[in-house]
Order: sequence, then structure tokens, then C-alpha cells
Amino acid sequence: MTLEQRLAVCRERVDPALERFLPADGEVPTRLVAAMRHALSGGKRLRPFLCMEAARAFGLRPETVLPTACGLEMLHCATLVHDDMPCVDDSDLRHGRAACHVEFDEATALLAGDALIIGAFECLTRQAEEPDIAPERVLRCVRELAEYTGVRGLVVGEALDIETEGRPCTESELEFIHLNKTAKLIICSSRSGAVLAGAPDDQLARLSEYAEALGLLFQITDDLLDVDGDTASTGKPVGADAAAGKATYPGLLGLAAARERAELFGARALQSAKGLPNREVWEALVEFVVKRRH
Amino acid sequence: MTLEQRLAVCRERVDPALERFLPADGEVPTRLVAAMRHALSGGKRLRPFLCMEAARAFGLRPETVLPTACGLEMLHCATLVHDDMPCVDDSDLRHGRAACHVEFDEATALLAGDALIIGAFECLTRQAEEPDIAPERVLRCVRELAEYTGVRGLVVGEALDIETEGRPCTESELEFIHLNKTAKLIICSSRSGAVLAGAPDDQLARLSEYAEALGLLFQITDDLLDVDGDTASTGKPVGADAAAGKATYPGLLGLAAARERAELFGARALQSAKGLPNREVWEALVEFVVKRRH
Repeated sequence: MTLEQRLAVCRERVDPALERFLPADGEVPTRLVAAMRHALSGGKRLRPFLCMEAARAFGLRPETVLPTACGLEMLHCATLVHDDMPCVDDSDLRHGRAACHVEFDEATALLAGDALIIGAFECLTRQAEEPDIAPERVLRCVRELAEYTGVRGLVVGEALDIETEGRPCTESELEFIHLNKTAKLIICSSRSGAVLAGAPDDQLARLSEYAEALGLLFQITDDLLDVDGDTASTGKPVGADAAAGKATYPGLLGLAAARERAELFGARALQSAKGLPNREVWEALVEFVVKRRH
Repeated sequence: MTLEQRLAVCRERVDPALERFLPADGEVPTRLVAAMRHALSGGKRLRPFLCMEAARAFGLRPETVLPTACGLEMLHCATLVHDDMPCVDDSDLRHGRAACHVEFDEATALLAGDALIIGAFECLTRQAEEPDIAPERVLRCVRELAEYTGVRGLVVGEALDIETEGRPCTESELEFIHLNKTAKLIICSSRSGAVLAGAPDDQLARLSEYAEALGLLFQITDDLLDVDGDTASTGKPVGADAAAGKATYPGLLGLAAARERAELFGARALQSAKGLPNREVWEALVEFVVKRRH
């Protein structure tokens, strides 16, 4: 199976599971659930995939960790909803459809994001209903999700991203933004599956190294797409990030140095993958992310 | 000790504990932490108090449950920050000071609320670091916090509150709003301390009945203050809620029936308190909430 096929299989499992976590139509008398469903639709399900593949690599059936995989996706989608709001990035489009606050309204989008963050933690606790998963492991996943996404994780990366808009940003600030905003939830997703499977600490550390490099590669690839991507295929003007005052590696270091940096992250991810079980899927993911540039 | 004195003692324990959960100045390079600190300041710490008193009632030292108590307050403060934003209630003032989005900006307030929601769950997981607290109990508190505040709890109450603004609202809709928006986190706060202390199920059920009645009393008292409160002392014009198109019991049922309803909730809370250990503190809380009207 190609990685695209594996991702498609994962999505076919995750999407109905996400739906099962939402209240049924009419169970709650508001538009909130429709807004949450809208926010959850689309997307590659990369974070659930990482969680499920890490579980598989360390000896669990991937389906076993579906509740945790769904929680990771909910948290990711929540941050997209809040990011798109007028007071943050003011984006009308997400996954080629109207952003949540456009399809509904700002207040509903704000609350849908909140409900998805809270729902993420609810999903993670439901992991304990699976037989043979010790509550200590579930609790560790909950704690790590909070640590990797809160004031020392994803959210603080977004905060610095906003604060540096339209002013010169240092290289260490940009590293901080990418590590927190993008890489930390990727790291957390990979670790969660491994933690639930009882992976030993040295393997968890290696998986974290791998996922950090993958996450940073993912973000810099995004930046490069904005600069040297094909306008016809990306569908947005070259330099849109720069025009919006967003700090990027190509903007900060120049195109050649940014490409070198991407290669460095890719090589680092491949190096870490060597010591991981099911090495081929981790390697295929690196290739998948690199291919996004073309 | 009077209840006011007990609340003050609780606040003196909770406030430094909340501070310890935040990154130190300079640990993260953004205004996010300052915005979170701003959001956490002020307030009666009623939810931590309920948690700590429930723990005491069922045999734990109240200080033992401080991490959970702090988490409950973080979640409460997060909802206030998001509620005050222009796209929701558009309130410039909170606890007599500038609301978070006024003191900082909308994007920072949005992210500070997100970080506080996530921080709430982080606090709850840190409860497991206390010796003699079984991870199963901590996990149950995490799950209950998510259930009582998410798409089947606090947030869905807020969503319906917004959706019914400016249109006639039925009595059952108003009950749904008050139960979810206000009472559920009050119930969850009381239960958390009792769950950590290992209270038996029948006592948990009684505590939930008590806290639901207390929460509904709390909300209807707010509504009544808006109508028959002393304008000079409440500092806002009589009928501000009605003018804002907010559904209230006095607006829906009339003043006399709303007062009757408040008395009913108070009596129900006192009835449930009879079967609870440390009955006097639960009774004093009912009196405290009723006194807010005067």
C-alpha cells in the first residue's frame, strides 16, 4: 500500500468514529453540533494516522487507539476554527469550503472551537473504556495533550505568531513558533499511540525526535510552497505569507537557505526513523511531506 | 467562621496555586501568560471552594485537591473571557476591570481562553501527583469535567443562550440554558472533590442534586438582581438583561413566579444538604447565594 492509500484507510476509520463522538441530530437544541461537524470535515487525518501507526509499531491494533486518535483530530480542528476567525488570521476558506465563522457566525465558531477542545479531552478519557489499556497510560496521554498544546505548546506558538506579524522576527522566534504551533501536536500524536502501547522511554524519545523533525519539515514545506510553489496549482499568489506580514524561513533566511533547512529536517527525520519499528511507514511519511512541494 | 471567611481562606490557598501553574515571567516570550493571569484575577473562587469542601466532607484534606480546584477555576475563567468577547456578549468590564480582550486584544483573549481550557485539564491530571490519589479517580474527574462543560454541558448552554437572544424563548429552553451554562460546572466542581475522596455513588448523587439546585438558584438570583435589585448598589440600570434581549425567569414568568422559583431551588438545595456530611457549610452556601439579592 502507498502512504496515500494508508491515509485513506485511516480516514475511513476515523471519520465515522469522530461522528460517533458528536451528539446525534436533535440531541442538543442548537447549531453548535453542526458547526463542530463542519469544523471536523475535510483534512488528511495526519494526526490520527500518526497515533494509530505508532500504536501499531509498538504492538497494539490501530483500531484500539481510535478514541485517542479522534481526540487529537478534534484538538487540531479546534485550532483551525479559532485561527480562521477575523480577530486572528481572518481566513474565509478552509479545506476549500467556507470557514466555520463564515458558514455559521463568529460566536458559534468560537464556541464550536471550545467544544472541540473539550471534546478532545473527553475522547482521550474514553480510551480507558478499551479493555487492556491501563488508566495510568490514558492519564499520561491526557497530561501530554495538555502539555503539548497549552501555554507551553501549540497555543503559545500561535500567540507568538500573531505578535510577530508585521515586524521583524528573529530566527529563534521563528523556530519557537514552528516548534510549538506545528511540531508539538505532531509529536504528541505520535507519542500517544506509543504511550498507550507501552513503548519504552528510549523509543518514545526517538519517536519524539522523529516527529519533531517531521513537524518542522511540514511547516517549512508550507512556507516554501508559498514562495516557490506553482501559483496555478497552489491557487494563491506567490508571496502571500510575506504580504500578510507572516514570518517564514524563506523570508528570514532566503530561499536557498530555507531549502537547505528543509533538507536538514528531512534527513534528521529519516535518521530517527532508522531506529523505529515499522520504519518504512515513518520514511514514507517524510517522502509524503517533501512531495507536497511539487 | 462565616462563609465569607471560609471563602477568603480558600481564595488565599487557590490564588498562589493558580499562579504556580502559570509559566514564570519570561518563560514564554509572549503576552499570553499576562492575559491568562488577568483572566484569572478577581472572582470568588466559588468552584474551587465547592471542590475543596466536598473533599473535606468525604474525608480528604482540602489542600490535597488544590490541583483540581485550580483546574475548575481555570475553566470557569476561560468561559468568562470568551463570553465577554465582542462576537458573544461584548462586555468591556469583568470584576470591575477591563475585560481581557480590552486590556489586551481579541486574538490574545481568544488564545488565553483556549490556553486556560487546556490548562484546566493539565491541572486535573497533575492531581495524580498527590500521593494516595488513585489514577482511576483522577481520570474520572477529567472525564466528568469534559462531560459537564463540553457539547453536552456548559458550552451548549452558552450556544443556546446566544441563539435565543432577541427572540421569544420557551421555559424549557431557559431551563436548559441555566442548567448547562451555570449549574453544570457547579455540579462538576462539587463532585470532583467527592470523587477524589472516594465518596459512594449515593452520596455523589445527593451532592449533584444539591449542587444543581444551588447552581439554578445562583442563576435565577442573578436574573432577579437585574430586575428588582437596587440600581444604586448593582450599578446597572434595572432591566439591562431584558434590554439586551436576554431570556430571564422574571421576563418569562413574571417577578412573583420567578421569586417563587428561586425559593423552590433554595428549598431543594437545603433538602439535599440534610443528607450530606458537613451539612452546615452546604446550608451556609445557600444562604450566601440568597443574600446576594439584598
